[in-house]
Amino acid sequence: MSEFFNVLTPADAWGVFRQHYHPKTTAEVMATAQALDRFLAEAPVAPHDLPQFRRSTVDGYAVRARDTFGASPGLPAFLEVVGEVPMGAAAAMRLAVGQAALVHTGGMIPDDADAVVMLENTQRVDERSIEVLSAVAVGENVIQVGEDIAAGQQILPAGHRLRPQDIGGLLALGIVEVRVARPPRVAIISTGDEVIPPEQEPGPGQVRDINSYTLAALALRAGGEPVPFGIIPDDKSALEDAVHRARDICDLVVLSAGSSVSYRDMSVEVLSSLGKPGVLAHGISIRPGKPTIIAVADGKAFFGLPGNPVSAMVLFDLFVAPAIRLHLGADPFGAYKPRLRARLARQIASAAGREDHVQVRLEEREGELWAVPVFGKSNLIYTLVHADGVVRVPLDSLGLEQGSWVEVTLHQ
Amino acid sequence: MSEFFNVLTPADAWGVFRQHYHPKTTAEVMATAQALDRFLAEAPVAPHDLPQFRRSTVDGYAVRARDTFGASPGLPAFLEVVGEVPMGAAAAMRLAVGQAALVHTGGMIPDDADAVVMLENTQRVDERSIEVLSAVAVGENVIQVGEDIAAGQQILPAGHRLRPQDIGGLLALGIVEVRVARPPRVAIISTGDEVIPPEQEPGPGQVRDINSYTLAALALRAGGEPVPFGIIPDDKSALEDAVHRARDICDLVVLSAGSSVSYRDMSVEVLSSLGKPGVLAHGISIRPGKPTIIAVADGKAFFGLPGNPVSAMVLFDLFVAPAIRLHLGADPFGAYKPRLRARLARQIASAAGREDHVQVRLEEREGELWAVPVFGKSNLIYTLVHADGVVRVPLDSLGLEQGSWVEVTLHQ
Repeated sequence: MSEFFNVLTPADAWGVFRQHYHPKTTAEVMATAQALDRFLAEAPVAPHDLPQFRRSTVDGYAVRARDTFGASPGLPAFLEVVGEVPMGAAAAMRLAVGQAALVHTGGMIPDDADAVVMLENTQRVDERSIEVLSAVAVGENVIQVGEDIAAGQQILPAGHRLRPQDIGGLLALGIVEVRVARPPRVAIISTGDEVIPPEQEPGPGQVRDINSYTLAALALRAGGEPVPFGIIPDDKSALEDAVHRARDICDLVVLSAGSSVSYRDMSVEVLSSLGKPGVLAHGISIRPGKPTIIAVADGKAFFGLPGNPVSAMVLFDLFVAPAIRLHLGADPFGAYKPRLRARLARQIASAAGREDHVQVRLEEREGELWAVPVFGKSNLIYTLVHADGVVRVPLDSLGLEQGSWVEVTLHQ
Repeated sequence: MSEFFNVLTPADAWGVFRQHYHPKTTAEVMATAQALDRFLAEAPVAPHDLPQFRRSTVDGYAVRARDTFGASPGLPAFLEVVGEVPMGAAAAMRLAVGQAALVHTGGMIPDDADAVVMLENTQRVDERSIEVLSAVAVGENVIQVGEDIAAGQQILPAGHRLRPQDIGGLLALGIVEVRVARPPRVAIISTGDEVIPPEQEPGPGQVRDINSYTLAALALRAGGEPVPFGIIPDDKSALEDAVHRARDICDLVVLSAGSSVSYRDMSVEVLSSLGKPGVLAHGISIRPGKPTIIAVADGKAFFGLPGNPVSAMVLFDLFVAPAIRLHLGADPFGAYKPRLRARLARQIASAAGREDHVQVRLEEREGELWAVPVFGKSNLIYTLVHADGVVRVPLDSLGLEQGSWVEVTLHQ
């Protein structure tokens, strides 16, 4: 039995995978307004300064700052108002010494002005004149040309996932189309003679397919395009055929293997026969999820995940999602994963040399956040349904004390 | 000038809004497999036990636990193997005292068995018999009927947003369709004579529309269906017309008002004339975002957000997204917002009686996470583009010390 012939730590497994997996990001062009959550295929550069003209940040009067020097409520500066800058148009007027122009928030500043006095710090004298009650410095209440972003500056790095404000930032510069990474196609293959489609009524010994759908949703979340391959029976040539078809049309292949030894042996045989370098890890020192297979063949990535849903999800998060992000040209482990600090409600025992991933539910108790381990075998999908996140117990730890502070990575 | 006639704290503004806003969630039925990120309109109940039969969690032998009592490597228990349980079929064999059946992970347990001995703890004697090297307790390595979830149990609460594992949990029970909340239609109206569509080349004094797209993406994220109403010029009857059309076909209306006083006055006039109870807050003690208008009229919600992008986003997160979630029947402030603890890289000054929301960039320095305030006027979209999240300075605080630990709510 070949089981666990090549058990690696999670870090080593990722290391050897990374060494052999060099996906090529391909780009496609799409409307920026529709590109939420897509990954930039190249770093866009500002085509012009933003703003392109000096703008007021307040409602007030554009002035020469020098004209307000020393102004106070007791000794106001007296200025002549020569006009009002219309919104959306040039500030065409000239300001001589001692002159001001009414300007609205976002409006353009006349060439001769170098500051704006807030309306609140002025007093109307008559139709044509105001008193300034407070001095302004040069540049005060003014957004300078290029202050938001300067022409030629890189806007965002390649591999960045677009957020709502990024879309705003691109459109502000007239970048109405962006080159984004094409989502890699992720084949999802479920195996097992006992597995039936969810719409069927299970007979004795049969269970409905869970992993095809959970893993497809996780692939979508990670930025991939899931491609379902259905349920393959416990038959080597059927599995081989499915894996070959998947390899031909997809970029990554995820097998949710039956969890028995015979299924695993079959998976590893099929994944070993695909090409170079082949199986890189067979067994990972992690709980749950030890019987995991990672392979690279002819530039494509293959993952044989354990069939039980908790292991499958933990391993997907640790290996498949980062591989999808690599394919998208992004930092494989994201910038900052959403996580929370909470106190551990019950002790967690672990073993040195094994990384434990414990599902937890979050509970607020007297204003403090507690992480309550969800006990349940990793075969149970409801262990995941009842969990808000996961706590990692490092490889070299013997466990975590009750009441200690832990970091919870949130399920989203 | 009516400005700030009714300035409320953020909590009071939400309180009065909540008191008057009672949206009716409407449901629609959709395929569970497609329902990622949708909100449950009702709490589904398990139609049957899961699993529906006793399953093995390991590869091994189904036994009567009593037959293994006292077994050890030195004194193994000798059992007769009567067959193998096929995957995906009933365990039809009967086990007499002293008999065992080979069973795979996930396989059904014969009626007469009450435990499974792991393969590793057995030794083949011949074709028909094994030695058991370690005793098992009743129920060991067995998932009981209904252990994952029991018939009649509530699966998830109404208002819950479906995650990948929730979809798996529903499909495991054959729930292939779910009743989910119909996404509320969120009208997005931009105003301002200076604002032009992003695909146009701005002339002097003109700027491209940012908020229509940023707010639409935020509405989508929150679970709404954004409905763009384009750019409305600085004209009361045009604004009135747009708001009336929006009210007629949408559930919530978001105005990104020009930020000058005249625009705000126009917005408040239009929002005051819609119906009962009308404008609830005009001005909120928050920075940025003070000149915000919140109204409810005839059961619909209206938000007049400041025109500058940073304020608009802060206020959207604080009021519009929670209102959308209310409409979806969800907890308005979500279960747990993704946030991180980090040390503040620079002092933040604030004023008592005002809640400050400061955009920050995250930086790792010698293994510690630091939150670096992004200085930049709230008129600048790149203040947001360069930010990873936001730090809230409470109403009664005078500021936060450099080096202190703060909570960063992440932009996603």
